[in-house]
Amino acid sequence: MSTETSLSSSIGIVQTQHYTFAQDQPFELESGATLSPVTLAYETYGRLNAVRSNAVLIVHALSGGAHAAGYRSPDDPKPGWWDDAIGPGKAFDTDRFFVICSNVLGSCYGSSGPSSIDPATGQPYGLHFPVVTIGDMVRAQLALIDHLGIEKLLCVAGGSIGGMQVLEWAARHGDRVKAAIPLATTARSNAMQIALSEVGRQAIYADPNWQGGDYYANGRRPDAGLAVARMIAHITYLSEQSMHSKFGRRLQSQERFGYQFQTEFQVESYLKHQGHAFIQRFDANSYLYITKAIDYFDLSAGSGSLAAALAGAAHSKFLVVSFTSDWLYPSHHSKELVSALTAVGADVSYLDIESSAGHDAFLVEVDTMTRLLGSFMDRLAREERC
Amino acid sequence: MSTETSLSSSIGIVQTQHYTFAQDQPFELESGATLSPVTLAYETYGRLNAVRSNAVLIVHALSGGAHAAGYRSPDDPKPGWWDDAIGPGKAFDTDRFFVICSNVLGSCYGSSGPSSIDPATGQPYGLHFPVVTIGDMVRAQLALIDHLGIEKLLCVAGGSIGGMQVLEWAARHGDRVKAAIPLATTARSNAMQIALSEVGRQAIYADPNWQGGDYYANGRRPDAGLAVARMIAHITYLSEQSMHSKFGRRLQSQERFGYQFQTEFQVESYLKHQGHAFIQRFDANSYLYITKAIDYFDLSAGSGSLAAALAGAAHSKFLVVSFTSDWLYPSHHSKELVSALTAVGADVSYLDIESSAGHDAFLVEVDTMTRLLGSFMDRLAREERC
Repeated sequence: MSTETSLSSSIGIVQTQHYTFAQDQPFELESGATLSPVTLAYETYGRLNAVRSNAVLIVHALSGGAHAAGYRSPDDPKPGWWDDAIGPGKAFDTDRFFVICSNVLGSCYGSSGPSSIDPATGQPYGLHFPVVTIGDMVRAQLALIDHLGIEKLLCVAGGSIGGMQVLEWAARHGDRVKAAIPLATTARSNAMQIALSEVGRQAIYADPNWQGGDYYANGRRPDAGLAVARMIAHITYLSEQSMHSKFGRRLQSQERFGYQFQTEFQVESYLKHQGHAFIQRFDANSYLYITKAIDYFDLSAGSGSLAAALAGAAHSKFLVVSFTSDWLYPSHHSKELVSALTAVGADVSYLDIESSAGHDAFLVEVDTMTRLLGSFMDRLAREERC
Repeated sequence: MSTETSLSSSIGIVQTQHYTFAQDQPFELESGATLSPVTLAYETYGRLNAVRSNAVLIVHALSGGAHAAGYRSPDDPKPGWWDDAIGPGKAFDTDRFFVICSNVLGSCYGSSGPSSIDPATGQPYGLHFPVVTIGDMVRAQLALIDHLGIEKLLCVAGGSIGGMQVLEWAARHGDRVKAAIPLATTARSNAMQIALSEVGRQAIYADPNWQGGDYYANGRRPDAGLAVARMIAHITYLSEQSMHSKFGRRLQSQERFGYQFQTEFQVESYLKHQGHAFIQRFDANSYLYITKAIDYFDLSAGSGSLAAALAGAAHSKFLVVSFTSDWLYPSHHSKELVSALTAVGADVSYLDIESSAGHDAFLVEVDTMTRLLGSFMDRLAREERC
């Protein structure tokens, strides 16, 4: 499909905007540290209605950004990361909804993060950037929503780490959100997820170019370590079955085994490509910060139980979705969440979707997700009359 | 349990032996390359009976060695890797069976491998060591069995990569083995397993100390890369549930989050320990060679089907075991194997054991495995009158 054809079904050409706040009054983080100023990169699609009741916040996963839909230019070959779901007539229908997506705090796509300039030194923060949490990311989004003049979001939606932000919104800021769509996620990172994060971080630490995070000035980035971290993570986004279907044991360019230490299976070539593409576009320190935020995420911490933590979400409507082959955030995490939501009396729809696509299913099962998200949003618009 | 107490239930003090062959006639490898000489480190426990009918070959997994049972000295704190299963009165009862275990070709525990001296140069082989396959490993074991004067093995048993060797024995050398016990394994490495191997290798390649495998002389080893490879692999040996039970979200030594890039969760500390312990005992190049052999393993290659490949195993007896939480070699691999074995008319017992221990279950579910292996070996001894 050419961009020209795609443009017709897309929101079209979009521009990333930036909102900077906390210049005078520093932004307080969960750690006790402060950050000043704070910038969030964001994009909006569609129009906010007169009564400001049609705003939908889309929250992204680990390596995503504010560019969720549309194209940056007429010859941009690739639309935003969730263009399948956001646009005219799509699940998040921009003819009806005002859709917002902002890059998370700590990332490297325009929001404040370790590669941003520390005003105290005029140099990139590196590891002097304070550690941020999912809660901090969401409170920064709240400042953006305030800035946009939105009292109450119609819906917050996102998958994976985006789903953690969705849950944080619903649990801690339930008065600001009517509905929540957490996809392929968990209310609490557990030991295996922390282990997988930590191995990725260890791969970055092990790269001599990492230099304790202070690599921006010298022109040598910890590419090798970041590529290994990405390759590990990429495996966790797929499933045994999807990898088998995609690659099997096929060789890349030979007919026989090479009996050398070269890339010869297609799956090896694919992984190397994923690692290589990632280092072109992502910052290793941001990878450390965002994975750390994931590991810290435990909605029930300090509340005694998940249900107690979700008491503030009792009046929100939920669409919870998990996928049978997702082994990074297996379905039982969503089921535990649904039990807690049901216990507090929230209005919950839950689907455990049969899919072989693994964790990535929330992005790649386009037809199923379009139907599901579309009908939930449709019902929401009817019920909330927007 | 002190060594003194353990010694009483163990085979006692054992010594590793070495068998060197192919000095005159080079050993031909599947790749077409040759190796000369070939040394295998091995241990034996118990006594070969007069009719030489009671020999059991134990084959080890990726990082194992010939030292499967007993202690190296009276003050050795730790017995061999499968001491739970091998010894007087145990499943592989050394009062009845003559048990042999040899270190695989390509490893670093006394058998020929990349850290061995290349007689052509007087230096360690490094990557000049030829790439070996599971088939090559097994044919080297066959040379050892010949050397020990054993016409037919009563049984070959092992888990994981050991299980691949078991299957290779049964399929290609069915006339030399009466029974086979492949545990937690597969007849064919698939895309996900190859991907996990490759990421481990990439972590090693990414370490500047690796130096294309030529690091033995300079005193700097690719420890950081090998540690990351081991940490990745270690996660694949456990399960989400076993990691949750062992570690949960517990912190190592603090009460609160440190909000710094330090090891703070117990699971992180455990993984780092695993990585650190591994680099003390294993050679990075051997890690490359053995994982490559795993990736190449496909019993059905060239035979058209798995059943066709197993035609030579039709008269062997099999005990096949998988574990419900093993996601590295999920149960469906064993089920496919059992179907093929049944199709060729082999005598097969199969158990898919309910366990939360993940891939490691074959080593850690001691009581279950003792009963299972013990009764199979007992039946075998009765039927084969040894």
